Amino acid sequence: MPRAKAYAAHTATTPLEPWTLERRNPGPHDVVIDIKYCGVCHSDLHMARGEWGNTTFPIVPGHEIVGYVTAVGGHVKKYKVGDKVGVGCLVDSCRECDPCKKGLEQFCYQGATFSYNSPERDGSGMTYGGYSQHIVTHEDFVLRIPDNLPLDAAAPLLCAGITTYSPLRHWKVGPGMKVAVLGLGGLGHMGVKLAVSMGAEVTMLSHSPWKKDDATRLGAHKFVLTSDEAQVKEAAGSFDFILDTVSAHHDYNFYLNMLKIDGTMVCVGVPPTPVPLSAFNLIFGRKSIGGSLIGGLPETQEMLDYCGEHNIVSDIEIIKMSEINEAYERMIKGDVKYRFVIDIASL
Amino acid sequence: MPRAKAYAAHTATTPLEPWTLERRNPGPHDVVIDIKYCGVCHSDLHMARGEWGNTTFPIVPGHEIVGYVTAVGGHVKKYKVGDKVGVGCLVDSCRECDPCKKGLEQFCYQGATFSYNSPERDGSGMTYGGYSQHIVTHEDFVLRIPDNLPLDAAAPLLCAGITTYSPLRHWKVGPGMKVAVLGLGGLGHMGVKLAVSMGAEVTMLSHSPWKKDDATRLGAHKFVLTSDEAQVKEAAGSFDFILDTVSAHHDYNFYLNMLKIDGTMVCVGVPPTPVPLSAFNLIFGRKSIGGSLIGGLPETQEMLDYCGEHNIVSDIEIIKMSEINEAYERMIKGDVKYRFVIDIASL
Repeated sequence: MPRAKAYAAHTATTPLEPWTLERRNPGPHDVVIDIKYCGVCHSDLHMARGEWGNTTFPIVPGHEIVGYVTAVGGHVKKYKVGDKVGVGCLVDSCRECDPCKKGLEQFCYQGATFSYNSPERDGSGMTYGGYSQHIVTHEDFVLRIPDNLPLDAAAPLLCAGITTYSPLRHWKVGPGMKVAVLGLGGLGHMGVKLAVSMGAEVTMLSHSPWKKDDATRLGAHKFVLTSDEAQVKEAAGSFDFILDTVSAHHDYNFYLNMLKIDGTMVCVGVPPTPVPLSAFNLIFGRKSIGGSLIGGLPETQEMLDYCGEHNIVSDIEIIKMSEINEAYERMIKGDVKYRFVIDIASL
Repeated sequence: MPRAKAYAAHTATTPLEPWTLERRNPGPHDVVIDIKYCGVCHSDLHMARGEWGNTTFPIVPGHEIVGYVTAVGGHVKKYKVGDKVGVGCLVDSCRECDPCKKGLEQFCYQGATFSYNSPERDGSGMTYGGYSQHIVTHEDFVLRIPDNLPLDAAAPLLCAGITTYSPLRHWKVGPGMKVAVLGLGGLGHMGVKLAVSMGAEVTMLSHSPWKKDDATRLGAHKFVLTSDEAQVKEAAGSFDFILDTVSAHHDYNFYLNMLKIDGTMVCVGVPPTPVPLSAFNLIFGRKSIGGSLIGGLPETQEMLDYCGEHNIVSDIEIIKMSEINEAYERMIKGDVKYRFVIDIASL
């Protein structure tokens, strides 16, 4: 069993610290990846601190994993040693149910296997994520990173990228559409870049006036300060689509009012408590509110290829593995532009 | 000014009683309609009792109006004396805004003129509805009732019919789709008939076991008793579309769980208080919840023609005008199968 240095949380209340994990011996369809960088997602923090109540400790977070192939199993066809690859939120699924057959593995009826804190399908234990030196993953769940993208800034595409790309595609965002992105963080900044690249007119919605310059730099055409009554009034009924990336508590009704007739708001974050929704705000204007969860494997590859073609990566701040606990604290304060990425060489 | 006998509420707490109203002298584009029947919608009751806080008294309710043309203005092209016609929830709109041009007059940016309790666009007072002997309406807001449909049972198509037809069409309900209708009342029973006629497999969702036989008689293929845990569990993830006709408080999350991946639930009723919605229930399965409000004029005519072709009308109980207050009390108890229709000859 190949051993890998890693960082793990051993309880919900202790910091992440060095640990050693064992990866499985690669099977015939497995790809061994030398991890170079791993993005830091807010979910990592929630899980490491047991905030969703379903953490099995020790936990090794990380699902924005990029690196190079160092070995492949005998039957691997898609990858060879030296390939620039990534692993996102998913490492396995039943592959037989209707969603799996449709490439929507994130909705696998039997439950997808996530990159960390999921039971392995063979009963061999829990999955461990990308805060580690290498990973062994079935080739079907390995993704190709376009040659032209820098490896470090490409890492967040594996979660923040696909989480925002998928709803923009599913709801057919494109030229002629007015799109708003709610929240300028790891997800929101990718949402702006992607929606702009798709040809939409993009407005950043934020209650922080100091985010305006950055929103503009990222490509947003307009900015609505949601604490300014006049700006909110002017924005009423103006968007075809709102991408809601906020996980903090917020009022859906306030934003539904900004949709045009037949407009849709899509949530990719889950606020801590349910949000009171007035049907009135859906009925008047035939509006909808929907949700979207990362993306399946085919769409994740499509997103990576798209980002390669359009030269889109994340805005990142590189950290050492030992800085992860401090980075979590900074994430809570929103003090990151816009994604921490761990240099795994620092492990 | 032609005078018409009517029934009006003079305050929120007094019963409806005989009254006489004045209709306008027909203008060049107006159609004068001798009202034969008027359906009784739950909105009539809410408005007559001032429950939505925006009632101007006296109020003459009624927006499921059918009868025969008795006179037409000099420029009227669409109708002639003797035509079998109807008037629904709308009697005017700005006709110039984007929704009006698209035939979505219910979403007129300036505010549509509703058949009762709306200010007339010429400032001449309030609109009065169908609990009266005749009505004078611009030809553009008059609808043709198919010859083969009985006039009394066709009346509820003007509100209950279009309110359910429009979302079923907009969300493309048809063969191969599994559709659930939530709530078996005036709206729900039309929802079942229409969804069945469109070729969907239709399930009635109800917490009342005694509604099963009636749901079957109306054409529903299946029945899920929502108070039965085993039936609810089996229904999880099974519907492409849920038409939610319930205005009483209910938990959206409970029903979202019954949607398939990419499924949509559409509300046509507004519960008395906002309903806490967990984004989790949207995100897992890329589900949506939307709303729909009656329908525009072109679609209302399309619905009537469709009902003519498919011989679809409402299940009704005819009442005399003098029985309206008793009928309201019975509606509150759900004691009507499934729509009261006033015989206006009784006025």
